[in-house]
Amino acid sequence: MPEVLKVRCRRCCAAGVLLAAMMSPVLLRAQSADFGQQVSGYVAAHKPAIVAELTELLAIPNVAADKPNIRRNAEHLRALLTRHGLQAEILETTGNPLVFARTPPRAGLPTVLFYCHYDGQPVDAKKWRQADPWEPVTRGEGDDTRIYARSASDDKAPIVALLAANDAIAAAGLAPTVNVKLILDGEEEASSPSLVPAIARYKDRLAADLMVILDGPGHPSGRPTIAYGARGLVTLDLTVYGPKSGVHSGNYGNWIPNPAMRLASLLASMKDDSGRVTVAGYYDGVPPLSAAERAILDAVPDEGARMLATFGVAAPEAAFPRLQEALQYPTLNVRGLASSFVGANARTIIPDRATAALDLRLVKETSAADLIARLRAHIEAQGYHLVDSDPDDATRARYGKLARLAVGDQILEAFRTPVGDPRARAVVASLTRTFGQAPVQLRTLGGTVPIAPFIDALGFPAILMPTVNFDNNQHEENENLRLSTFFDSIVTIAAVLRQ
Amino acid sequence: MPEVLKVRCRRCCAAGVLLAAMMSPVLLRAQSADFGQQVSGYVAAHKPAIVAELTELLAIPNVAADKPNIRRNAEHLRALLTRHGLQAEILETTGNPLVFARTPPRAGLPTVLFYCHYDGQPVDAKKWRQADPWEPVTRGEGDDTRIYARSASDDKAPIVALLAANDAIAAAGLAPTVNVKLILDGEEEASSPSLVPAIARYKDRLAADLMVILDGPGHPSGRPTIAYGARGLVTLDLTVYGPKSGVHSGNYGNWIPNPAMRLASLLASMKDDSGRVTVAGYYDGVPPLSAAERAILDAVPDEGARMLATFGVAAPEAAFPRLQEALQYPTLNVRGLASSFVGANARTIIPDRATAALDLRLVKETSAADLIARLRAHIEAQGYHLVDSDPDDATRARYGKLARLAVGDQILEAFRTPVGDPRARAVVASLTRTFGQAPVQLRTLGGTVPIAPFIDALGFPAILMPTVNFDNNQHEENENLRLSTFFDSIVTIAAVLRQ
Repeated sequence: MPEVLKVRCRRCCAAGVLLAAMMSPVLLRAQSADFGQQVSGYVAAHKPAIVAELTELLAIPNVAADKPNIRRNAEHLRALLTRHGLQAEILETTGNPLVFARTPPRAGLPTVLFYCHYDGQPVDAKKWRQADPWEPVTRGEGDDTRIYARSASDDKAPIVALLAANDAIAAAGLAPTVNVKLILDGEEEASSPSLVPAIARYKDRLAADLMVILDGPGHPSGRPTIAYGARGLVTLDLTVYGPKSGVHSGNYGNWIPNPAMRLASLLASMKDDSGRVTVAGYYDGVPPLSAAERAILDAVPDEGARMLATFGVAAPEAAFPRLQEALQYPTLNVRGLASSFVGANARTIIPDRATAALDLRLVKETSAADLIARLRAHIEAQGYHLVDSDPDDATRARYGKLARLAVGDQILEAFRTPVGDPRARAVVASLTRTFGQAPVQLRTLGGTVPIAPFIDALGFPAILMPTVNFDNNQHEENENLRLSTFFDSIVTIAAVLRQ
Repeated sequence: MPEVLKVRCRRCCAAGVLLAAMMSPVLLRAQSADFGQQVSGYVAAHKPAIVAELTELLAIPNVAADKPNIRRNAEHLRALLTRHGLQAEILETTGNPLVFARTPPRAGLPTVLFYCHYDGQPVDAKKWRQADPWEPVTRGEGDDTRIYARSASDDKAPIVALLAANDAIAAAGLAPTVNVKLILDGEEEASSPSLVPAIARYKDRLAADLMVILDGPGHPSGRPTIAYGARGLVTLDLTVYGPKSGVHSGNYGNWIPNPAMRLASLLASMKDDSGRVTVAGYYDGVPPLSAAERAILDAVPDEGARMLATFGVAAPEAAFPRLQEALQYPTLNVRGLASSFVGANARTIIPDRATAALDLRLVKETSAADLIARLRAHIEAQGYHLVDSDPDDATRARYGKLARLAVGDQILEAFRTPVGDPRARAVVASLTRTFGQAPVQLRTLGGTVPIAPFIDALGFPAILMPTVNFDNNQHEENENLRLSTFFDSIVTIAAVLRQ
């Protein structure tokens, strides 16, 4: 590992950032922009083969619950990794298989464990602009050419990018300066229940000095991005009960209370118009940002206007006008609403119940247990009696307002590696050398990788390196991968391999 | 027609009601309880045949959009009516066919036109406790034996009851004291678009002195019930727009505004916790109830506690604790909510939109146009820009809060016949004689029959006579008909035929 130097970066100092980087002046010369150009050249010469490898992988359906196709993905990946010269194997778990691979170990080098996942979110195929989300379609022109398919961005692209990066280094007559390990999760979108239990069985294989998690959308600027942490996640279903079954809205309207309206009022009581959560104590324990933390956030290029234009939104939440600051706080998000029917099947009734599907994003300082307790207290403070299952007649007769707050199976806490961690600094330094400027550094990624307990159990630091286009429609219909961003990501990953 | 007498009813005077009734002392003796017992006796002796006739009719699917089965219903009804000695025919319209029938006309008698509908609400078959909502199932014991099937109560039972009443009168060696006409609507649940246009073509057939609309649930006391009017109905879909497509709730949570939360706040702004609408001017034009009107409402037996227990609701809306009073005001009801998914398909996104399906019940003094205008003004006052279709990029960039209020195809205004109408009094008098006490009289039925323009166009007064059990799950899964209530309704209808 090169010695630690503190250098003042010419570009970033304008934004007030002191870049703490690990780098040697020799490597700086030997591997600056030249290395990046070598990798870019390799990528330019091998685009069709790299893209073909990706589309072949995308053609295998990969919802975590679809066991036969998950197995097909794992077998396909093992063969693919082997073909690229890695020592690859399938690691069986109590759930979906992991795929593990490593470069032949070389003594004296630090080890980087890369993490990706090969499963994807469920699809609502009717909403896609193509017949099948697992039949990849290429659309667009020039730099904006994109591949549309489930998991194009989340999270199969980084797997193929890593292999291309490794090939590019070999093609340049070089070798990685780290021992490379790769673990591919097959149930990340199902919250990775088998990942931590698998550590006991495979601890030796997984041992490393740093984990680099290749997942999530990169910064809209297109610059290499690293994140020191990610928010956690807990999902909840909040149901407000009305009459035992729907009743005619004419015969009983104005008289039988409406659970959909009550749910609306209850949700409205949880946030003010600015988007700030009004549940008592919700932000407790989250300290105000220090000047240094604020500087890290401020150094992130502000792509707010561009993102808003892309999403078709005129203005962000008034409470959190800057995205980077918004991500430092827990959320209370309504991810779905349902009560009776809307549209052609709508009936003129007072529904029997109304449900809001919520997700709460957690930060390091707010545990799931605390936020759930505060939410329960808030609901009770609005006059509701909370039940654990559909209420019986006696309960219905006793309580005027009945609700249920059901917590989802998986609770994922947040994690955050200190910004000053030396292994992370080495990555930042290499990226700075390769690209001629510091990467975008994010204190907290807004999304969740179900990785906090995995990191805790492994016992070495972890950073996130999100590489795909920010507007990839991740988790939604028409998920896509912008190819020019994908090709750039190969250079980024190569820089991690040649620290 | 017998002369008009004003009599003070012994039972009702306790409740402060002066019964204005048309009756002759001779008829009063000749046809009091004896007549009721004759009809009851006939019904008791013919239950299996009457029920078989009903179940046969219920076995024909009858959603208005299902044209082949609607035709089967019409043909079946024409044959049934003919078999019972009526002159029956199918009247073609621009939509579903009407079925018309009449008793052979006799000179010098007033004519009563009965209205029922033979179509039913769409079904969500999965939610029913039986394989098929159109394969009637009988469950329960003794007085609470019920037939479960779509349209068992709404509105096929009254058709069969009318025929049985006519048969019972003949079996007693009597004849109706009115000329009977019957019109059966085949698209009431689709808001009867063809009914008014059909009048021009069939005006002679439809001419009568009074229309009696056999539809809706009777009073929970089981007493004969008449209503002088019904609330109107307008349906709306209120959509709040979020990002162009759903975005990841982690990557953008706290920053991209959430349309489901905004919809919740918007709905919450429309009503206070007591259930009173807070939209400015919503109740304008509805005068306070006069003492006489309040007396009519107070005379209705209060079955509130029983209804609440049946529906599993501890307390009604605080603003309208008495059902009869609640029905005198317009409603703002959330009949459905939808945004992305809830349950197994829920995804961790900020949804692209959230929609509330609303229905507004109108009273005579509040037109649909007025209430819609007030609702629009309210939404705009909350900072929303209202669009008429999904917003384009320029609109999205310009307005921070975007919503759409789409008004349903059919607007149905309320109607109300004055309580003192002489034809209505004749019916009240006959029911009072037959049952030994006055019927329950409702100033306004809470539900809607799409009949106001039909009544206006016909030019003679109309009353509603709802006859089925109040807890029939009308419009919902497991719609049912309580057979003992059904048998009682045959006596009620017979009393209208023998005024």
